Amino acid sequence: MEEKLAKLKSLLAEIADLGATSALLNWDQLVNMPAGAAEDRGEQIATIEQILHAKSTSDEIGNLLEDLTQTTKQMDADSDYARLIKVAKHNYDKATKVSAEFVSEFARVSTVAQSVWEKSRAESDFSIFQPYLEQLIGLRQQYADFFKPWDHVYDPLLDDYEPGMKTADVQAIFNALRPKQVELIKAIAEKPQVEKSFLFLEYPEKAQLDFGVEVISKFGYDWNHGRQDKSVHPFTTGFGLNDVRITTRFNTKFLPTAMFGTMHECGHALYELGIAKKYNRTPLGAGASMAVHESQSRLWENLVGRSRAFWKHFYPRLQELFPSQLGNVTAEMFYKAVNAVEPSLIRVEADEATYNLHIMLRLEMEIALMEGSLKAKDAPEAWNAKFKDYLGIVPPDNAQGVLQDVHWSFGGFGYFPTYALGNLVSAQLWERMEQDIPDVEAQVENANFAVILNWLRENVHVYGAKFEPQELVQKVTGSKITPEPFMRYLDKKFKDIYSL
Amino acid sequence: MEEKLAKLKSLLAEIADLGATSALLNWDQLVNMPAGAAEDRGEQIATIEQILHAKSTSDEIGNLLEDLTQTTKQMDADSDYARLIKVAKHNYDKATKVSAEFVSEFARVSTVAQSVWEKSRAESDFSIFQPYLEQLIGLRQQYADFFKPWDHVYDPLLDDYEPGMKTADVQAIFNALRPKQVELIKAIAEKPQVEKSFLFLEYPEKAQLDFGVEVISKFGYDWNHGRQDKSVHPFTTGFGLNDVRITTRFNTKFLPTAMFGTMHECGHALYELGIAKKYNRTPLGAGASMAVHESQSRLWENLVGRSRAFWKHFYPRLQELFPSQLGNVTAEMFYKAVNAVEPSLIRVEADEATYNLHIMLRLEMEIALMEGSLKAKDAPEAWNAKFKDYLGIVPPDNAQGVLQDVHWSFGGFGYFPTYALGNLVSAQLWERMEQDIPDVEAQVENANFAVILNWLRENVHVYGAKFEPQELVQKVTGSKITPEPFMRYLDKKFKDIYSL
Repeated sequence: MEEKLAKLKSLLAEIADLGATSALLNWDQLVNMPAGAAEDRGEQIATIEQILHAKSTSDEIGNLLEDLTQTTKQMDADSDYARLIKVAKHNYDKATKVSAEFVSEFARVSTVAQSVWEKSRAESDFSIFQPYLEQLIGLRQQYADFFKPWDHVYDPLLDDYEPGMKTADVQAIFNALRPKQVELIKAIAEKPQVEKSFLFLEYPEKAQLDFGVEVISKFGYDWNHGRQDKSVHPFTTGFGLNDVRITTRFNTKFLPTAMFGTMHECGHALYELGIAKKYNRTPLGAGASMAVHESQSRLWENLVGRSRAFWKHFYPRLQELFPSQLGNVTAEMFYKAVNAVEPSLIRVEADEATYNLHIMLRLEMEIALMEGSLKAKDAPEAWNAKFKDYLGIVPPDNAQGVLQDVHWSFGGFGYFPTYALGNLVSAQLWERMEQDIPDVEAQVENANFAVILNWLRENVHVYGAKFEPQELVQKVTGSKITPEPFMRYLDKKFKDIYSL
Repeated sequence: MEEKLAKLKSLLAEIADLGATSALLNWDQLVNMPAGAAEDRGEQIATIEQILHAKSTSDEIGNLLEDLTQTTKQMDADSDYARLIKVAKHNYDKATKVSAEFVSEFARVSTVAQSVWEKSRAESDFSIFQPYLEQLIGLRQQYADFFKPWDHVYDPLLDDYEPGMKTADVQAIFNALRPKQVELIKAIAEKPQVEKSFLFLEYPEKAQLDFGVEVISKFGYDWNHGRQDKSVHPFTTGFGLNDVRITTRFNTKFLPTAMFGTMHECGHALYELGIAKKYNRTPLGAGASMAVHESQSRLWENLVGRSRAFWKHFYPRLQELFPSQLGNVTAEMFYKAVNAVEPSLIRVEADEATYNLHIMLRLEMEIALMEGSLKAKDAPEAWNAKFKDYLGIVPPDNAQGVLQDVHWSFGGFGYFPTYALGNLVSAQLWERMEQDIPDVEAQVENANFAVILNWLRENVHVYGAKFEPQELVQKVTGSKITPEPFMRYLDKKFKDIYSL
């Protein structure tokens, strides 16, 4: 068995290296690659992904996992060894249940669909994208069928991003959350808006960059194992556990974009850099799920970065960098401005109080599309109706409505709910952290982020993908994913800001 | 056969993609990678190289090449098809003749030897490196044995860099060249030195970068298929034929480093970007050899970039960028300064008249080491004696002598002669070009480099690796590689500069 385990580990390491290599090809494409190389890069990524798929679904690895799974049965189910085999087996089973023909067809359609979606959005013409959306829904339904039996057609999709999570769980959570969020937003709407026009002045990029670097260096981002670049859409990516990079987008006419974007991506990076190094080059060397990942980015962006304590510390420095823009703005005014609540059209620009409603709308539509109760052709109308219902406004066109997100164009149904779940988990973790570190607010005010980072490392990061997301949240907070802490957080924060 | 050819092409494309991916992992390591990721990156590169080796030596590809070689026999031997099969077969045969154990052992020793060499050079202590040099010589002798029978033990090594070239050919060329170069240098040494102290003033990096970008943009470097970054040692690398990148090193206390380095690397990049796109993702989509590659970098760096005509055009712009440093320096003074001849210790800093002597010394030592007539322990003494003989000076220590180059530490015996051969080929091509474009000097003076680039593309670049280097040079210039044009070029240039 020793020998089989060693062989398995070497195969898993090879798979991890191929995954890291594919990630580098993608990162380079988005950060460095000259435009004229796009076609070749597509071929290179396809070649690596094909080899990766073949290695991930080989009979050799399947047989080893079969044999080694037997040996874990008399063992502590929470041991690293048992969990490694379990996660590897889960990945293997998912990969092998899907036919090679399907994988190839799905790759083909989703590649084309992404460029069609770009055109469709640019022209704000849904009819261009509609036939591709129909195809992608059909393909994702086929995908779900590979995993029958299930309770709900959406379950296998969700499981790709949130291992072990069921559609019914998410629906229950969102159903409890929705009325409370809607109520809060209504209450805020009756109050005078906060002044935020100074956020829209001219903010030179270099000073924005410098400020971001200072903040995330204080957060504890390790530049010996990371770097920051510019890209059209900000993202975080890792090539193993010792090289986790972030990208940032700058908007010289809106200060928050790069500032909170940098903190957000840094939160993702701190997570991956905090995973136990012993899991490097194994399937455990990754985040537990997209929601847990998002809980980390949101915690640093919002619970820390949009807190009054944070700005007490950092605002003087920001004023120093932007004296003409912020010279007459107080720290308190700035704090309120970056927390202004206002129903808006675009998810990625939404504030903390309205963000989850954007997600709920998408989840409900995805479920209806997958169930077949909503047809692709009716998606724009359904979108606008729900938008009016939840946020009180209607998109003026489809580019700012149903076509705004890239996710559906790559067939990523199942992805959206993780954003809202991440918000909920961030608040659950923060409440638990406040019990362990009662003066956490004072620590933030002193920019002593090490206590927070260490707590997150010990309680969350270090485990990597060893535990499923619900297990991990239960283990740390004593409860599965639940909306109450997040609502308590929102209520407290916005009652204060808006004198509700 | 159609089907077999299609299968072969798809396997070769996969191999090309893996090669491009490995190159990206290396480029990123040298340009972007945070230091703390070195170990993981080593694993990633090893994994990709292992897969690449397995795919390159598979029975499947061997059988296809065997069958398809038969079909080329009734065919035009210079057709793309016949040449593709020939080059692919040559690569396959070379790769499969070497045992897997050897490949693994050589990789292990040369990886360690490189870091040992770094230490050895840093401490200028040859004894640290000596045992590794001995091992590497032994391994390269073993490597040669895989290719028996040969005329000379050095032949298979040379063939890795110069397909089809023999040790005796190189020796004959160098034997004809050496006395002429020595004679020229002696004549120059008797003349007053040219003034060049102004090259050693403070030259800010940004203006150096800007000048370099302007020059290579004029050369025709296509930024839609390339980019420029900084690295410790300048290099050029490509990921397919549509993405060829260069790197530059800046020395703010010596202007020529980045200036000529940028032109040099651009010359390499223009070559790869000029290869017929139909050869992309095939073994023909590469330079013909290292010498032909070097002929391109040297042509742009020296024949163009160190010409009087070039500086007639560009010097006013350079003065504009560096008014305090060059305000009192005339174009003619500058031209002479960047062409100053002076025997010096370090190859990479050597001028055009002395450079080849550095190479000849290395070739003679490599041959003696491989033959066994020189022992590794006696290398420093042999180096210094030859140095005195050819260049009239003796290195004060081994760091500036036998330990200066990285090549031996990775076992790269056979590589050095390509540098000098490249110089010779650059002059042969230039003479031929002067016949086709009689006003080429005027074109340079007008910065109309398109005529030069187009000539090189049509006559050299477009063929990629279709022809062996000697075939290609013969085809273009009517003669194999020969030293006369280079000596005519040196004589004419330096007789003028030094009034010989």
